[in-house]
Order: sequence, then C-alpha cells, then structure tokens
Amino acid sequence: MHPARAGTTTVHAMTADWYDGRCPDLDISEPDSRARVVASATALLAQNGVGSLTPARIQAAARVSRAEFEQLFPDPDVIVEVIVSTQLDAVLRAQLPRLDAVQNLEDLQHWLSRLLDPRARKSSSALGSLIHHLADRHDRGQRALATAFAHWRTSLASALSRLQTAGELDRGVPPEELAVGLIAALQGGHLLAHLTRDADQLRVTLEMAFDQVRAHAT
Amino acid sequence: MHPARAGTTTVHAMTADWYDGRCPDLDISEPDSRARVVASATALLAQNGVGSLTPARIQAAARVSRAEFEQLFPDPDVIVEVIVSTQLDAVLRAQLPRLDAVQNLEDLQHWLSRLLDPRARKSSSALGSLIHHLADRHDRGQRALATAFAHWRTSLASALSRLQTAGELDRGVPPEELAVGLIAALQGGHLLAHLTRDADQLRVTLEMAFDQVRAHAT
Repeated sequence: MHPARAGTTTVHAMTADWYDGRCPDLDISEPDSRARVVASATALLAQNGVGSLTPARIQAAARVSRAEFEQLFPDPDVIVEVIVSTQLDAVLRAQLPRLDAVQNLEDLQHWLSRLLDPRARKSSSALGSLIHHLADRHDRGQRALATAFAHWRTSLASALSRLQTAGELDRGVPPEELAVGLIAALQGGHLLAHLTRDADQLRVTLEMAFDQVRAHAT
Repeated sequence: MHPARAGTTTVHAMTADWYDGRCPDLDISEPDSRARVVASATALLAQNGVGSLTPARIQAAARVSRAEFEQLFPDPDVIVEVIVSTQLDAVLRAQLPRLDAVQNLEDLQHWLSRLLDPRARKSSSALGSLIHHLADRHDRGQRALATAFAHWRTSLASALSRLQTAGELDRGVPPEELAVGLIAALQGGHLLAHLTRDADQLRVTLEMAFDQVRAHAT
C-alpha cells in the first residue's frame, strides 16, 4: 500500500473516472508525481485495458520523465497492484468499519441499504470493472484483487457469524457461503444497474439477497 | 443479426477468446470476410477496449481491403452492435428454449444447474465483460446489450409466471423482480468465479438464488 495521503487524494478522482469512463481531471499543481503516475495509469487501464499500460504511455500521461518514472516504479508491473490496492482502499475503507459494527439483522440491512448510495455504488462497481480488465490478463493484478475480495468476504462472514452467535441467524447456514452470495448479488446488481442506467435493478437485487439472509433468521 | 451460418461458425471461437483473453485462431481459409471482420473486431474489443475499434485496425486484423470493409460496414459503429448480437445469440440460443420449457420448480433448478456447465459459463461471462467494455462508452452498443438482457429477463420472468399459474410459486412475488435478482446473481457469481478461478463461487451463488425462489414455493 502506498502512503495514505496520496491514496486519499487520488481515490476520489479515480473512482469517479472509472465509473464514468472519462479521463480524470488531473491536477497539474499536484506535486506528488507518484500519485499522478497512479492516476494516469488508472485512467489508461479503465479506458484502454491492461495492454495500454506501457511505461512510455504512462510517463506521457503523467508528465513525468523516464528517469523519475523508473525511480518511482523500477518494476512497472507494481503499478497494477497499486491501482488495485488504491481502488480497494476506497471500498474497504468504507465497508470494513460498517461491517465490523454489524451486531444484528437491522444493522446488516442498514449496511446493505447504504450500498445503494451513489458513492458506494461507484466504488463497488469499480472493483467489478477491474476484474474484467485484469482476470486472465495480469497474474499479480488478479491475485491482488482476489485478496481484496477475500478480505471483504471474510469481514462479511464475520458479521454473519456474530448474528449466529447472537441467536439472530440459524447456525446451520455457512456464513462464508452466505457472504459469497451477498457479494455476488452486489456485483451482479451493479452490473445490471450500470447497463440499464437504472439503480432500481441494484435495489431489487440487494433486497432479494437480504431476504435470503432473513430466511435464515431464527 | 447476420446470417446464422456465419454466426454459428464464429460464436464458438469468439466466446472462448473473450473469456480467455487470447486471440482467436482466425481461419485464413474462412471465405466469409464479414465473419472475419466481426471475429477480429471482437478480439480487438476484448483485448484493447472499444477505443481500439478503428476501421484501419479492424481491416488489418481481418485482412480485408479498405474498399471491402467500407462495403461491408458503411457505418463502422454497426460492428459493435453486431458483436453484441453475436455474443448475445450464443447466450440466448442456449437459454431461451430451455427457459421456455420450464414448467415447474424442478425444471427451473435444472436450468440453473446447467448454467454451471463450462460452455454456458463462458457465454454468460462474455456478456458481463461486454457491459464493462461498452456501458458509458458506446451508446448503441449499450442499447443493444440492454435489449439483450431485457429479452433474457422477460423469458425468465415468463417462466416464473408460469410457475405461479401452475400454483408452484406464491403469486405475491413480482416475477420481473425475481428474474432481475436471478440474473444479477448469475452475473455476480460469474465475476467472483472468474476472479478466484473457482467455479464453486458460482455454484454457491446460484444455489442461494434458487433458495430465494424456493422460499416463495407454495
């Protein structure tokens, strides 16, 4: 992970760009060339795929010299991992504290309904988009993403497990499987909402997924 | 839609390519230059995004002259619509007859379990990938895809509606919403299975989605 300050600065622009498919408004006064390189590489990846991430194109887009680029990223493949972890930071920074606070079914429903918030929608949708760009094309990028999703799934499974301990959910249902189904519903709902430009498709999908959890309520 | 013969020839190679992220083995002896153009454009789109679909690049990849290309596609944007309808043909040709044959919950479960078949997985996953490539980037391509998904959803909703008429499902649940949830689960499950290279994630997701339908069984 790169320093939190750079992450905080860049995540907002990149996430919006990713979702909208537009170039981010790179701030020329941004003194942090590492952040500029990551933002430019993210825009290239989103617009032209992982094949477009050549050092020359990234240098031109980020307005850094070859020497500076090579100093920042001696191994250019690291950039893809940084893109993944930056996007991931945006999702996990929002998700994990809320998931960790889930103590009952009402909290879980509240967590799900917050996923309908436009900002949360953009971050989660960005992760789905990254999977399509990287899976089967960039081994290290794919592994970084798989780790991200595993972390998210584990936190959700822990929340569901707490509901079982609290006697709110049937102990017969494996929390890990329920977590996979919820995250899949979320990602699939994003995909349909994105396609149809109708956030209602995500709402319907999340409500159905929550009904599935509630079906195991004790 | 292009002629069925060309579609039948090319869909297999394209779908596999799409999923694997490799170039299709274009058959040089393939006499149908339209099919070659569509296959080449599909590979370019999958590998380099919609921005790579310039007439010059497609002509070079398909080994057709500029004159022939312009005769085949006076409006190059039509190529994206043909790519969508070709991928879509593969999914709908497999899905619609099976969905139309669903008469009871057991048939529906059978339909869902067939989606775990590697060939069905590839086709559905290709549609999800197309959404990420086209949504917000190519209006006509996005509309063609949205129409495709609407067609699929309508067929699934009709199947669910027949189960209601047959008294197998509670009439209180809107078939259209249940259909959205099922297709979202399918797409999200594909995404996770693709990411983790673990088809079990799709299986778990589909089982959870089917449980959701079964929860409304009468």
